Amino acid sequence: MAEKPNLIGWTCPRPLQNYPTIVLGHGSGGKMMADLIQHLFSPAFENDLLGQMNDSTTLDLTETFQSIPSNRLAFTTDSFVVSPLFFPGGNIGELAIFGTINDLAMSGAKPLFLSAGFILEEGLPMEMLGKIVNSMAVACKFGGVKIAAGDTKVVNRGHGDGLYINTSGIGVIPDGINISAKYARPGDVVLINGSVGDHGMAIMSVRSGLEFETAIKSDTAPLNGLVDSMLEVTHEIHCLRDATRGGLAAVLNELATASNVGIEFDEKAVPILPEVNAACEMLGLDPFYIANEGKFVVVMPEAKAEEVLFVMRKHPYGKDAAIIGKVVENHPGLVTARTSIGGMRVVDLPAGELLPRIC
Amino acid sequence: MAEKPNLIGWTCPRPLQNYPTIVLGHGSGGKMMADLIQHLFSPAFENDLLGQMNDSTTLDLTETFQSIPSNRLAFTTDSFVVSPLFFPGGNIGELAIFGTINDLAMSGAKPLFLSAGFILEEGLPMEMLGKIVNSMAVACKFGGVKIAAGDTKVVNRGHGDGLYINTSGIGVIPDGINISAKYARPGDVVLINGSVGDHGMAIMSVRSGLEFETAIKSDTAPLNGLVDSMLEVTHEIHCLRDATRGGLAAVLNELATASNVGIEFDEKAVPILPEVNAACEMLGLDPFYIANEGKFVVVMPEAKAEEVLFVMRKHPYGKDAAIIGKVVENHPGLVTARTSIGGMRVVDLPAGELLPRIC
Repeated sequence: MAEKPNLIGWTCPRPLQNYPTIVLGHGSGGKMMADLIQHLFSPAFENDLLGQMNDSTTLDLTETFQSIPSNRLAFTTDSFVVSPLFFPGGNIGELAIFGTINDLAMSGAKPLFLSAGFILEEGLPMEMLGKIVNSMAVACKFGGVKIAAGDTKVVNRGHGDGLYINTSGIGVIPDGINISAKYARPGDVVLINGSVGDHGMAIMSVRSGLEFETAIKSDTAPLNGLVDSMLEVTHEIHCLRDATRGGLAAVLNELATASNVGIEFDEKAVPILPEVNAACEMLGLDPFYIANEGKFVVVMPEAKAEEVLFVMRKHPYGKDAAIIGKVVENHPGLVTARTSIGGMRVVDLPAGELLPRIC
Repeated sequence: MAEKPNLIGWTCPRPLQNYPTIVLGHGSGGKMMADLIQHLFSPAFENDLLGQMNDSTTLDLTETFQSIPSNRLAFTTDSFVVSPLFFPGGNIGELAIFGTINDLAMSGAKPLFLSAGFILEEGLPMEMLGKIVNSMAVACKFGGVKIAAGDTKVVNRGHGDGLYINTSGIGVIPDGINISAKYARPGDVVLINGSVGDHGMAIMSVRSGLEFETAIKSDTAPLNGLVDSMLEVTHEIHCLRDATRGGLAAVLNELATASNVGIEFDEKAVPILPEVNAACEMLGLDPFYIANEGKFVVVMPEAKAEEVLFVMRKHPYGKDAAIIGKVVENHPGLVTARTSIGGMRVVDLPAGELLPRIC
């Protein structure tokens, strides 16, 4: 009698009639992939563009350019490899949608079209993929964007981590808006839309198995609505940047370098949730280096700042907005902080990441 | 004396002064990532867009729309997970660039801007990444596109396969061009630009450790130039589709379904290299199901077909172009082939993939 084959770590390139999990065949150009698209992706992301069934999707911008006078697009890409896939306050799917919406919004663009590229690991439970895709669909509706193009690949068991998602995005930048990391000027003030460190500490709490007394939730959120309301007040916003990997410290350093100016901020002025602060103290971490997924820095002339701050605070994603610092002429390229005990310290660009794979 | 730590499978989230391989810190928002961008990605992909240093890149289309009257963009995304990373005739980098160029060209678009999202596995030799990135840069120049946006993530050792690349792309569809999988009409003829099965068999030869007498090379190539020259002859091209995953059989089935027509082709009319044919026979594979990366199907009215064929054959990527079949009214949604011995057979959509991860 033939020996029973060893099925542990077994990989299946061919179809299974019922598939509770992803198999390699789902990444082929054949029936199984067509099934996955027809039964999972298409119903979830349903819109007038996905029915085109071509290698690329035609985006007719005639109406867009009638309602938004413009000749400029914003284009961005981001891959998401966060571990674990589900975390307090969100999951990899909504993170991918909101992250790309935010990268577009930071140019003052109206985010319109997103692509979704999935790299699935063989063995991923179909139910989990379903949950993530559905949450992406909800996030798209909430953020006002459409999935215009997609792609699915499957990698062998042990060559992924459940799934990775790439989202690229296209937005339209209305005429008259000019925002860039290079436009910070001495005399400008620096604002933030709320508390820092929430996302990174939420991931850390589940990754390290730490149980904080109060659960820390990720701040993942689409920021385009808030940016819109700010741009209605004034077009005189010089820089916008979301404080993701590397946290507030990285973003301020990038702006200081790109604009060749100094930036000074007041540690006490930066909102930090008490539970995030406590967790950071316990672990010996600096909250200014911890990643966020719904927080961004604004650099703009002081004259209009109070008015913009007022509008930000009316918005759910800006209710704790604060002016945290200013742009200065001295020490170009350098960021300094006034510490809680009144001294000054240099806040450098982080080297690596305190906790990798937070997005 | 403390025990020596076990460094096997060791992962490093923090910086190393010299890094011959990728470490987790390269995916942070900090100095190491900045180094990677500054010393590797920026010099390779150098263009006027990458210096913007913003979360998204501004694409000013004023000049584009002056030279190409249009209100329509083409948008596409594709992730590349091919294994091995280097194969006869190409590597994952150029495959990613050409693949996305081709998806845009198949809508009749002029490919203009690509994004590049890297998911790097900790431990990837820096030299290998350098080779791949440089080959992407060469491919961009050759295909006439610019990398406009990028992203780098690093996943832990054992959670990737060296690297995965996502390329998304934007092109402009000139006014007057209307190409879609839905536009095949009875009476149209079906053309292909050259021999089928080369890419899939090239991958198979290295994956299976098979040594064929003649080395089979991948046909990876940018098809936009060839498509341009065809569209100069006539805008009356109904469908274009590149025959990647699932091969010629999958593409013909997709067109038959999308247009609700029947398609008949003549097996003997389809160009197949002798070495590919021999390898397929040896392995019992059907070359019509094998993936290509530089071949595409054209569906168009018969009246102009000979003229288009003439132009195709003048082009290096179309020199073996041939008319292989026709669109018929009967059996809508079904593809049939006249076999070499004169019978007819149904050519179904493949189920899974004969060889996964070929792109």
